[in-house]
Amino acid sequence: MFDPFSEIDKRAINTIRVVACDMIDSANSGHPGAPMGCAPMAHVLFSRFFKCNPTNSKWINRDRFVLSNGHGCTLQYVINHLLGYKITLNDLKNFRQYLSITPGHPERGVTDGIEVTTGPLGQGFSNAVGLAIAEAHLASIYNRPGIELFNNYTYTIVGDGCLQEGVSSEAASMAGHFKLGKLIALYDANNIQIDGEIRVQFTEDVCARFKAYGWQVLKVDDGDSDLDAIANAIEEAKKELSKPTLIYVRTTIGYGSKNQGTPKAHGNPLKTEEIANVKQLFNLDPTKTFDIPKDVRAFYDKLTRKGVNYEKEWNSLFDKYSIQYPEEAKEIRRRLRGDLVKGWEKLLPRYTPADKPMATRKLSECVLNNICDALPEFIGGSADLTGSNLTRWTNAKDFQATGSGIGDYSGRYFHYGVREHGMAAVMNGMAAYGCGLIPFGSTFLNFINYASGAVRLSSLSKHQVVYIMTHDSIGVGEDGPTHQPIETFAALRAQPNLNVIRPADGNEVSAAYYQALTSKETPSVLCLTRQNVPHLKGSSIENALKGGYILQDEPNPKVILAGTGSEVSLCVEAAELLKKDNIPARVVSLPCLSLFDSQGKSYCNKVLPKGIPILSVEAASTFGWAKYAHMSVGIDSFGMSASAKKIFEHFGLVPEAIAKKAKLLISKFPKMLF
Amino acid sequence: MFDPFSEIDKRAINTIRVVACDMIDSANSGHPGAPMGCAPMAHVLFSRFFKCNPTNSKWINRDRFVLSNGHGCTLQYVINHLLGYKITLNDLKNFRQYLSITPGHPERGVTDGIEVTTGPLGQGFSNAVGLAIAEAHLASIYNRPGIELFNNYTYTIVGDGCLQEGVSSEAASMAGHFKLGKLIALYDANNIQIDGEIRVQFTEDVCARFKAYGWQVLKVDDGDSDLDAIANAIEEAKKELSKPTLIYVRTTIGYGSKNQGTPKAHGNPLKTEEIANVKQLFNLDPTKTFDIPKDVRAFYDKLTRKGVNYEKEWNSLFDKYSIQYPEEAKEIRRRLRGDLVKGWEKLLPRYTPADKPMATRKLSECVLNNICDALPEFIGGSADLTGSNLTRWTNAKDFQATGSGIGDYSGRYFHYGVREHGMAAVMNGMAAYGCGLIPFGSTFLNFINYASGAVRLSSLSKHQVVYIMTHDSIGVGEDGPTHQPIETFAALRAQPNLNVIRPADGNEVSAAYYQALTSKETPSVLCLTRQNVPHLKGSSIENALKGGYILQDEPNPKVILAGTGSEVSLCVEAAELLKKDNIPARVVSLPCLSLFDSQGKSYCNKVLPKGIPILSVEAASTFGWAKYAHMSVGIDSFGMSASAKKIFEHFGLVPEAIAKKAKLLISKFPKMLF
Ligand SMILES: [Ca+2]
Ligand SMILES: [Ca+2]
Repeated sequence: MFDPFSEIDKRAINTIRVVACDMIDSANSGHPGAPMGCAPMAHVLFSRFFKCNPTNSKWINRDRFVLSNGHGCTLQYVINHLLGYKITLNDLKNFRQYLSITPGHPERGVTDGIEVTTGPLGQGFSNAVGLAIAEAHLASIYNRPGIELFNNYTYTIVGDGCLQEGVSSEAASMAGHFKLGKLIALYDANNIQIDGEIRVQFTEDVCARFKAYGWQVLKVDDGDSDLDAIANAIEEAKKELSKPTLIYVRTTIGYGSKNQGTPKAHGNPLKTEEIANVKQLFNLDPTKTFDIPKDVRAFYDKLTRKGVNYEKEWNSLFDKYSIQYPEEAKEIRRRLRGDLVKGWEKLLPRYTPADKPMATRKLSECVLNNICDALPEFIGGSADLTGSNLTRWTNAKDFQATGSGIGDYSGRYFHYGVREHGMAAVMNGMAAYGCGLIPFGSTFLNFINYASGAVRLSSLSKHQVVYIMTHDSIGVGEDGPTHQPIETFAALRAQPNLNVIRPADGNEVSAAYYQALTSKETPSVLCLTRQNVPHLKGSSIENALKGGYILQDEPNPKVILAGTGSEVSLCVEAAELLKKDNIPARVVSLPCLSLFDSQGKSYCNKVLPKGIPILSVEAASTFGWAKYAHMSVGIDSFGMSASAKKIFEHFGLVPEAIAKKAKLLISKFPKMLF
Repeated sequence: MFDPFSEIDKRAINTIRVVACDMIDSANSGHPGAPMGCAPMAHVLFSRFFKCNPTNSKWINRDRFVLSNGHGCTLQYVINHLLGYKITLNDLKNFRQYLSITPGHPERGVTDGIEVTTGPLGQGFSNAVGLAIAEAHLASIYNRPGIELFNNYTYTIVGDGCLQEGVSSEAASMAGHFKLGKLIALYDANNIQIDGEIRVQFTEDVCARFKAYGWQVLKVDDGDSDLDAIANAIEEAKKELSKPTLIYVRTTIGYGSKNQGTPKAHGNPLKTEEIANVKQLFNLDPTKTFDIPKDVRAFYDKLTRKGVNYEKEWNSLFDKYSIQYPEEAKEIRRRLRGDLVKGWEKLLPRYTPADKPMATRKLSECVLNNICDALPEFIGGSADLTGSNLTRWTNAKDFQATGSGIGDYSGRYFHYGVREHGMAAVMNGMAAYGCGLIPFGSTFLNFINYASGAVRLSSLSKHQVVYIMTHDSIGVGEDGPTHQPIETFAALRAQPNLNVIRPADGNEVSAAYYQALTSKETPSVLCLTRQNVPHLKGSSIENALKGGYILQDEPNPKVILAGTGSEVSLCVEAAELLKKDNIPARVVSLPCLSLFDSQGKSYCNKVLPKGIPILSVEAASTFGWAKYAHMSVGIDSFGMSASAKKIFEHFGLVPEAIAKKAKLLISKFPKMLF
């Protein structure tokens, strides 16, 4: 049972509301509506239920909180300040200012106590699903009778916008399917959106929808003032361990302001005089700004001390666990450090040109079969394309609700369903949990665009997640242009902090995994073929890890053929044709342009020297290749439905046509530069 | 009441099933599961309810059909062949072959009778919502008492995968909100997906979910054989005019094959012997392939003749209408031709440098206010950012369910909700309806990535849709990196058949709209600023329509500054600084690279001659600029939360820094090329 509410709770809530307004006023920019409306539920949650240690925001068994309506971040900044996270009053005053730690939307890694970056609607909610999955998984693996090392709850506050986004529909359906009993979403139901009352665009029955997903749904009629009702609902939600819970909390947007309950309250900063009026209404000192009354401060200070104790108790529990289960404890410690198992990289297969040609998706399967048993933190699956993506390793067990009879929470293989965006957002959440988890997800490369909203956040938030994307070109063949990526490489390569890796053969596939699994702050997209490719002379894991390298060379090359993935072997063949015509050609493999660039100018100039004409070859848009090449063989239209062989021919992606284009380039070089 | 079913119906259904298998066998590639399972519902629909004229697939009041599970396209190809569309038996035999008109997934514009391109799951269903919106809208505008010119139904068949995708959740919620009574979705509920039975990943209650969206939900227990039940359900669905209907049809995937009811039936071609067995089971000749029994042919031929009459009757109706409502009839004819109102382009505002600086989103609002009343076919709205996108013109009326009290179906302004992907897919559907409709949608540019799956199909399907994307750079300011596009221009520019237009000032905004509204087969993305920009000397609508042009010049320029959008005025200022240092500089504005490229080499070389060093300036990823420039000012990391001014300074996007970079470039040129 929670401690009864009293006047101090009201004062705390109102203090949070007005300090949030002070921040927005000071920045003259921000969204007062949500923090004013959500302050009661947030205060109830953090004062009565939430287990965290604000002096160590990394404590692994902390409850997780995600403000999915990230535009309301002043709420979280104020509460985290009060709770004792590393956010000073001065930081609050610098809201939205240059280089401050209190940016306009919550950013993981920038502000202490922020679990995930939110703002793009629907992402936070979906991340919360991933966070809850991670807890269920680790609990299932490491908890022992009487010792629950992992048992935290995941809470999220979501707004109308979040629940309209398809990504949250996908994640909600997943959460219901997986019966994530420790996931609790508080729905800030204020009937208002930017375009007006929700009746202009959002008249579905959200509660019925969530019941249909398999969620428990609870309702709080007066979320502005009825703290008991909020607390009772959270308590009931916590007790239901076989279903996630949505608590519909009816609130008033901008509560206390003159625009309360209207769309104007959403994103218009209150003027200083208005805030003074609100303070008066709340019996707070209208002459002061950024004022935390002493009793409110004292109230929250007590929560800080309580939080310190939570971790202390857990540490004792872990000590006990370490004695009874030394092996498991050691493993947990390793995972908390983020270290991979020593020597895992020796499991990566190596190939020679004598080995049988294989599709790189198949070579990826070989890697997974070799490494997955050794790397328990590497977990993932496919968006309903397991048999095509080849992502299920031999000994994989399905992650499913324990008791479902088709797997349990200790399983590491995920059937994400045909939900690419939800998959990516859930992966981000799993990665954000910590304890070394490295999630992967898979679909056809072309459908990564369904997930772009979340893939961008993988990069921005520096999540180590791995996108295993197969069927990476017109090599798809008969499925046709709807399934053939063209612009995809360019779109992904232009995104900061993302390694787009397109291996050419077996050794390069091994390198791709090595890179992905050791890039702690950079997500990776592995682009893999449907069709077979040969193992190439000159390829090696070490070479490929440079992102680009000389695969095969001739003395005084007259032209450089630079390819990626399945086109590298075409370049090799084209070079052989050129050689017959006495044109010495170098072949460069460029599996990852961002890695290549990061090697520094002198290395790059060695591989791709200025004075030699360079022809890029990639079965995709030529957009972006001018940085590396003087001419490009590629595809600047959509693909077609036919056999892969026919399509490659059609687009001139065959050795003869490449050799011809190389000759053309040689004939124009270097005049073409002027 | 529909005609009773008899043996011939069964024969027709089984014929469709086995010819679909023959096609897949002949291609040795394709998906037999869906056509075999969906043949009964498709046959019932097309034989008893569907109104179309197969000899004129463009008849405007035809019922619309969308196979959202596009991998089952053999079903539609066979039926369209039987119905008399321009698909020969030979075309069926060339399924998935090079240059055939029967590609691996249905493609609009490639195959007669295909309304929209499907395959990427969830898109077709969402397009169907757009098609139904278009019908409701045109009916509301043009129908008159006793004369219903527009009253077609929209039918779609959807699979489990379609209903898992977030885009369909968004579109379904919209359809429920808009009470689209003439939209009927047949759900091929076969309990099977690629990864296995749906219980591994899809255990939500789909019917309850659709009820929550405001749909009528009907159920057919035996969709394999109970034709009456299917027909009764469709009849009931047609009668409910105040809600869209989902008919849950329980089917057996791959019905009749040895793998029926299992995931193997989904995408594995049946072997020739297996197909023979199926034929035997169905009492069809096992020795023949691509065999249409005479009675089946005759049965469908009757449907063709019936279809011809539908249009004849409609034409008589239209003649009657033309007499009673000559003005409206003239307008309909104009719209059917796809002609814009004559002289509309004179409404586009023109500016001089003396005019007040304005944000290009605001200038866009001016255009909308000027043209929207004159162009009734231009319809659209915003994904809950109306006040920020500035997309609602003065006289706009909301598109809402008639009787809702907050607008009606004749309204042209859409509150799409926070559903970017659904918005784009619905726009594609509206455009596909025809009758000249040009839909637009709006959100912050950065969130177009939520919609990428549908934006790609706008391009691939050649839909004339307009994405009005505001807040197009770090100029967003305080909202921070989650809201600031970086990779977005590159991602969009790499996509074939998409005009990405980033106007620099008022005249260029007018040009952007001119281009968008006259590009009948190319979608446009207008990228507009949040912040003010000045009107530039040298800009004009005519210049901007070339995609790139010399804005300001000096004799014998030593450097070219080439910018887009809000950075063009920075280039102008930088050129002035350079002039003070006696460095003559040319300023080039490049509002649309694809248009610029299409002007031909000689024009491009005049604007950006080879021998002069070129510096590109754009507040976004430099990826892709090497094609046009020797050096780039841009942003190859994520943005930040601060005032726009601070962020522009931080990234060197101010005249002083640009001028400095220009000098650096001059000093390195042309040595840097070698
Ligand atoms: Ca709201
Ligand atoms: Ca299915």
